[in-house]
Amino acid sequence: MTGDRPRPRLKAPVFEIGLKGYAWGAAAVRLAKAADRVGKRLDVSIVFDPQAVDIAAVARETRHLLVFAQHMDPVPPGRGVGSVLAEAIQEAGAVGAMLNHSERRMSLGDIRRAVERAREVGLLTMVYADSPDEAAAVSHFGPDIVLAEPPELIATSRSAATEMRGFVERAIELVGRIDPATIVMSAAGVQTPDDVERMMALGVGGTGSSSGILKADDPVAMIEAMVGAMHRAWLGAHPVASAGAVDGSTRGSSR
Amino acid sequence: MTGDRPRPRLKAPVFEIGLKGYAWGAAAVRLAKAADRVGKRLDVSIVFDPQAVDIAAVARETRHLLVFAQHMDPVPPGRGVGSVLAEAIQEAGAVGAMLNHSERRMSLGDIRRAVERAREVGLLTMVYADSPDEAAAVSHFGPDIVLAEPPELIATSRSAATEMRGFVERAIELVGRIDPATIVMSAAGVQTPDDVERMMALGVGGTGSSSGILKADDPVAMIEAMVGAMHRAWLGAHPVASAGAVDGSTRGSSR
Amino acid sequence: MTGDRPRPRLKAPVFEIGLKGYAWGAAAVRLAKAADRVGKRLDVSIVFDPQAVDIAAVARETRHLLVFAQHMDPVPPGRGVGSVLAEAIQEAGAVGAMLNHSERRMSLGDIRRAVERAREVGLLTMVYADSPDEAAAVSHFGPDIVLAEPPELIATSRSAATEMRGFVERAIELVGRIDPATIVMSAAGVQTPDDVERMMALGVGGTGSSSGILKADDPVAMIEAMVGAMHRAWLGAHPVASAGAVDGSTRGSSR
Amino acid sequence: MTGDRPRPRLKAPVFEIGLKGYAWGAAAVRLAKAADRVGKRLDVSIVFDPQAVDIAAVARETRHLLVFAQHMDPVPPGRGVGSVLAEAIQEAGAVGAMLNHSERRMSLGDIRRAVERAREVGLLTMVYADSPDEAAAVSHFGPDIVLAEPPELIATSRSAATEMRGFVERAIELVGRIDPATIVMSAAGVQTPDDVERMMALGVGGTGSSSGILKADDPVAMIEAMVGAMHRAWLGAHPVASAGAVDGSTRGSSR
Repeated sequence: MTGDRPRPRLKAPVFEIGLKGYAWGAAAVRLAKAADRVGKRLDVSIVFDPQAVDIAAVARETRHLLVFAQHMDPVPPGRGVGSVLAEAIQEAGAVGAMLNHSERRMSLGDIRRAVERAREVGLLTMVYADSPDEAAAVSHFGPDIVLAEPPELIATSRSAATEMRGFVERAIELVGRIDPATIVMSAAGVQTPDDVERMMALGVGGTGSSSGILKADDPVAMIEAMVGAMHRAWLGAHPVASAGAVDGSTRGSSR
Repeated sequence: MTGDRPRPRLKAPVFEIGLKGYAWGAAAVRLAKAADRVGKRLDVSIVFDPQAVDIAAVARETRHLLVFAQHMDPVPPGRGVGSVLAEAIQEAGAVGAMLNHSERRMSLGDIRRAVERAREVGLLTMVYADSPDEAAAVSHFGPDIVLAEPPELIATSRSAATEMRGFVERAIELVGRIDPATIVMSAAGVQTPDDVERMMALGVGGTGSSSGILKADDPVAMIEAMVGAMHRAWLGAHPVASAGAVDGSTRGSSR
Repeated sequence: MTGDRPRPRLKAPVFEIGLKGYAWGAAAVRLAKAADRVGKRLDVSIVFDPQAVDIAAVARETRHLLVFAQHMDPVPPGRGVGSVLAEAIQEAGAVGAMLNHSERRMSLGDIRRAVERAREVGLLTMVYADSPDEAAAVSHFGPDIVLAEPPELIATSRSAATEMRGFVERAIELVGRIDPATIVMSAAGVQTPDDVERMMALGVGGTGSSSGILKADDPVAMIEAMVGAMHRAWLGAHPVASAGAVDGSTRGSSR
Repeated sequence: MTGDRPRPRLKAPVFEIGLKGYAWGAAAVRLAKAADRVGKRLDVSIVFDPQAVDIAAVARETRHLLVFAQHMDPVPPGRGVGSVLAEAIQEAGAVGAMLNHSERRMSLGDIRRAVERAREVGLLTMVYADSPDEAAAVSHFGPDIVLAEPPELIATSRSAATEMRGFVERAIELVGRIDPATIVMSAAGVQTPDDVERMMALGVGGTGSSSGILKADDPVAMIEAMVGAMHRAWLGAHPVASAGAVDGSTRGSSR
């Protein structure tokens, strides 16, 4: 892996705001600016993934957000009409890419190659897994974040705390054995600040929300409440974490 | 189809510069600005398709280019991580989208739904077909342009004039029967201005090049030479075309 | 197309029994034998599509059924692990293949190539289309049957007669313009013999059922009742059809 | 996993004859019978994967072969036109299925679900991986065999012994850490009995060939020569293996 470029520093806890196709253009930028202020105030890593076409505007208008592409292809520069090229999203301001989301599945080989391509150019990766075993599987490729969620809970309001406990704990344990520096997140079914709190209590390194924020009456207020809840839960569990690096809670260029 | 929004006006002849993953960021914008000047000077429609992430910058820095996305998904706003949303590319400045390129195949149903979604929001569409029969097939969905090319010639220097004559003439004939307003283009194997001329002589409403331009020693000079060759060939075949609308050579909001 | 091998004779009306994954092995063979007796008695073309693995047994145990594969890939002999090869299903006793079903989408190019491969080896094809425009589109490739159905009605009991009238009539009209020899069928939402009757009244060349038969208390009795209903409806509309070939109601080697 | 059905016993070394689309029907059965005799004589596990449509005939005509499907889908009985159903291939006589071959990629989630479905019904699984890291990844799902091969060597005659040494040794090491009972195989580029010997010297639990056998002047003689070479190499490295179970070299219902 010599030759891989340094990547942005990533520090747990991480909150992901996945825009999917719920917001775009000026609305996406407005939301990004609000999230940027919250992230700065609480010193929390916020991953924000807009439509590819909005990456440049979001990156230009924010300073603290970690702007991620919603997908990236494992292709090198050259042919590949319609592919999302690592170099292109990076030059536009993205610092990472989501891979293999349940709404955008990739083959096993493509996941590995995309993580490698990201590392070559210096992009972070968040790889989705829909079971603890898959979380373990993808952690062999060296992603920065594994997002482990039961797909049947995504975009629902079924309680993570009751339905996902075993799922999340098992994912954390398995990934930790393979690469303890990987941040394990889970976010399915997170619709309220209380859901955030319950999720954090399971020991994850981060959480997030899409429909919970984007369908809220006041999305900005919801971001503030959710990120605040995550921050408090994290401080409760990691009293010194906000003051600096903690084993297993930082990740980045030093890898 | 009531409720479909007006689309940008499109006039043959059309020249397509497909960036694929050959150029991005500042290099893509530089090329776009050069193409913009050529398109304006010769009053030719130039379709320019950058990486999705570069659409906004290219649209902002040019005035005459028809900026197309390299791909668009047939999804409505909402869920769909990693999908390319019609509304999002449009707000960023795209006026159209390429669909079903041989390097980004779509299912039959998705092609139809994507053309319909584009029409709803007022985007043009260029649908790729790799045989005359497929060109006829997709013309039932009402695309603005059908790009008919034998995939085995893409990115090669095998001569269109000798190998594709029957292919192209048949595509023009079949599409013309179904929807005479559709512009039929072909561009595979176009590497020089001479290739452009030979292609136009087959009766197409446009042509283009990717690797022929992007691997040229001087891409800007190549754009000028190729678009100039297309313009001369078109004027020779359609003496009054540059002065106004010609049956079958315009397309757009009036449809 | 010289060199294409003769295909089995196909005569409207056609009734399709799509097993999907509802029945297999001995149960599939039992159902096939029952369908075979009904088809023989009423002199009706019954297309029966079992799992690929059951094609040989079904073909061996029946004489009148038209055994179709549920899917076929557009590949030539050689590489392609996991592909369904035209020559292989034919040697096992299949006389045709379903292509592009809504539960097994194919790219536009693959549909065309699969229809061509089928014709080369002498197999019939039934191509699925989920809109009248797609029915028109695929009819350019020369399939023997187009199965036009709104995917949202498949496996439901919503009435075809009220919801699909315009859809079906439009598909018949469009396909008829392009290739009048193509049989246009529709089967979504067919759960009872009455549904069969109503569907036939729309002018289709055939219909069929999957869940309506396979979830019935007595699948064999349901086959008899549905095929009987189709036969009566057809005779009512085509008084001489059972006595011989009628323009547009036969198809096959003479093409 | 209570409730999973017992699976056939599998014992290293394993030789795989992947028919792909090179042979089918009567020719496939002839080859299967020859392989069956060789497997019996040398007491070697031979995995034989014909076209799905030929599984029943091959299973009926052989006694010692382990008949595998070339692909299986992770679907339950019910809907799914064109899917390969676990229960159906099993009733036809298959004892296992290949998954995720480089010519038939699956998403990460589908690989896991297919391995689970196979275990539910009592089928063995061989999962393809195109890098040591992917071999480690899929071993979390509990497959019986991992087939680790660099895709660029498949169907070539580039020497495994020189080009793949590090690749194969690393795959064996990584998989062994996660599940030592998993058999690790590698077969890309195996075109001669010498290639078999060199591959076995790397420590694999099996190897195989597709084009090396199917394009040979005398495929049956080539099977004999290759399986013989594997058998000798295995005996040399595992003096008592042929006499009974060895730690890590058996796998099956006892799991």
